[in-house]
Amino acid sequence: MSIRIFVTGGTFDKEYNELSGQLFFKDSHLPEMLDLGRCLVPVDIRTLMMIDSLDMTDMDRELIVRHCQEVDATQIIITHGTDTMALTAQLLAERIKDKTIVLTGAMIPYKFGSSDGLFNLGSAMAFVQTLPPGVYVAMNGRYFHANNVRKNKESGVFEELR
Amino acid sequence: MSIRIFVTGGTFDKEYNELSGQLFFKDSHLPEMLDLGRCLVPVDIRTLMMIDSLDMTDMDRELIVRHCQEVDATQIIITHGTDTMALTAQLLAERIKDKTIVLTGAMIPYKFGSSDGLFNLGSAMAFVQTLPPGVYVAMNGRYFHANNVRKNKESGVFEELR
Amino acid sequence: MSIRIFVTGGTFDKEYNELSGQLFFKDSHLPEMLDLGRCLVPVDIRTLMMIDSLDMTDMDRELIVRHCQEVDATQIIITHGTDTMALTAQLLAERIKDKTIVLTGAMIPYKFGSSDGLFNLGSAMAFVQTLPPGVYVAMNGRYFHANNVRKNKESGVFEELR
Amino acid sequence: MSIRIFVTGGTFDKEYNELSGQLFFKDSHLPEMLDLGRCLVPVDIRTLMMIDSLDMTDMDRELIVRHCQEVDATQIIITHGTDTMALTAQLLAERIKDKTIVLTGAMIPYKFGSSDGLFNLGSAMAFVQTLPPGVYVAMNGRYFHANNVRKNKESGVFEELR
Repeated sequence: MSIRIFVTGGTFDKEYNELSGQLFFKDSHLPEMLDLGRCLVPVDIRTLMMIDSLDMTDMDRELIVRHCQEVDATQIIITHGTDTMALTAQLLAERIKDKTIVLTGAMIPYKFGSSDGLFNLGSAMAFVQTLPPGVYVAMNGRYFHANNVRKNKESGVFEELR
Repeated sequence: MSIRIFVTGGTFDKEYNELSGQLFFKDSHLPEMLDLGRCLVPVDIRTLMMIDSLDMTDMDRELIVRHCQEVDATQIIITHGTDTMALTAQLLAERIKDKTIVLTGAMIPYKFGSSDGLFNLGSAMAFVQTLPPGVYVAMNGRYFHANNVRKNKESGVFEELR
Repeated sequence: MSIRIFVTGGTFDKEYNELSGQLFFKDSHLPEMLDLGRCLVPVDIRTLMMIDSLDMTDMDRELIVRHCQEVDATQIIITHGTDTMALTAQLLAERIKDKTIVLTGAMIPYKFGSSDGLFNLGSAMAFVQTLPPGVYVAMNGRYFHANNVRKNKESGVFEELR
Repeated sequence: MSIRIFVTGGTFDKEYNELSGQLFFKDSHLPEMLDLGRCLVPVDIRTLMMIDSLDMTDMDRELIVRHCQEVDATQIIITHGTDTMALTAQLLAERIKDKTIVLTGAMIPYKFGSSDGLFNLGSAMAFVQTLPPGVYVAMNGRYFHANNVRKNKESGVFEELR
């Protein structure tokens, strides 16, 4: 069965609007990134929203949970802004027990030459195939259990709570 | 304990010599790639050789096996040219049973903008942390058991033997 | 005599702040860009300010004029945000008659893989060596006289007034 | 009238063949490079050959001369391997007096992230619009008269003969 990828936006997919000089969201770069990585794992990509995770509401999170519940796939990757990634992971962990769900993202937009996005996507793709059912955050080459992770706002890196 | 990374060369690390117009090996790009991926997994990188895997001799493979046997680390990544990656994996699988060893590489040099290297390295980093002891090839987002993999010379992709 | 390059900021030099998710200015990328272009023309780079050209005040423009007047160099490149580049060019043209001054910039930050910056810098470097004294805007492979150029806000491209 | 661009190959256009691990020529990257530079100068691109300039024969050079003679355009850019660029420039200078012809190239293939190609193309585009009739080599931000240039084989840079 294919791995399902749900796109929610985040730094991963930010682009530069050359008229306004602002960052914005257009289309997801996931298909392009998987092509670049020459990924041959069957995947099915769906964009649920294209937002900064600081703007994500409770309703948005409900929508993500429902999609994860209803999809047939038992291996799910969610691309997500890093600022509230841990929060979404915790909600998913409370509600879904029988699937392997991996949230990942990037510190630097993919379209910037220096993005960590491709590395993170590669690791998320591997973790989702090998970890037992549960909800995880995959960043910086590591994986964290949804109930034991936070983003350190000062250093920008993910770390265990305890 | 740190993950050990053994560098053996391969397409990953090929560079362009602007005076001769030929591809050649200088230093490994692994540290730079891990920085780009903002990898926070403790790793210890050792360069064993810097060669095209078509030039790899039996003696070179013996050297790789011995290093894998003697190192304390139980999680090992080997960067390797793709042409004979399956061969080295098979030799390692015969001789080493109690460690998780993941071989990975790239179809396009890292220094080319369009390389699959960062994606593969991200997946190798994840597989080595999660797969049980054994020897694996990690390419195209997938992992293969050492005894059930070959590179399809025509398509350039790795596939199961059966 | 060296070509003088005055850096004033603009899209050229915008970077992504990974903690705040905002674009900001740190150091100029000019030295890095000239290295990448393997530029062997003697240049002397001075940063006058690092701002978005929408934030440029009359006093900032006075400062740029004075630096152009007082420097010994007779060939000057100014990197500048595109939004008010034409305005600064016109002021310079009124006040300085005996030097070749070329303003250039970028629509996409250099640090984005898809920047037009390196192309524009290459053309500015050539125009400043070959055009007669006067003030010019160099964008899109073209050059414009300071008194006959504006940025079309809708299309984002520079065009003649008449 | 449009600027004519004649493509002859050279490092500019080398690509990596991922099956053979060798560099090779496929299509020219010129259109893509001009798009990236957002070039708005009208150009007309013709590929005459796609070869390493070390493999360029007298007959190939005759072909280039004839195309430059017969085309209506009076401003011509030729992309060319650097190894024999000076030689082709000298032949053109003997035979064509009434057009501005600028030869340019790259030390690193465009497809490598670290290419000087876009900078050189930007400068060639500017030089061809501003220099008087004659034949020139544009590299490293500089221009050289066809009769006073050679590539220093040791340093890889172009320099005056005297």
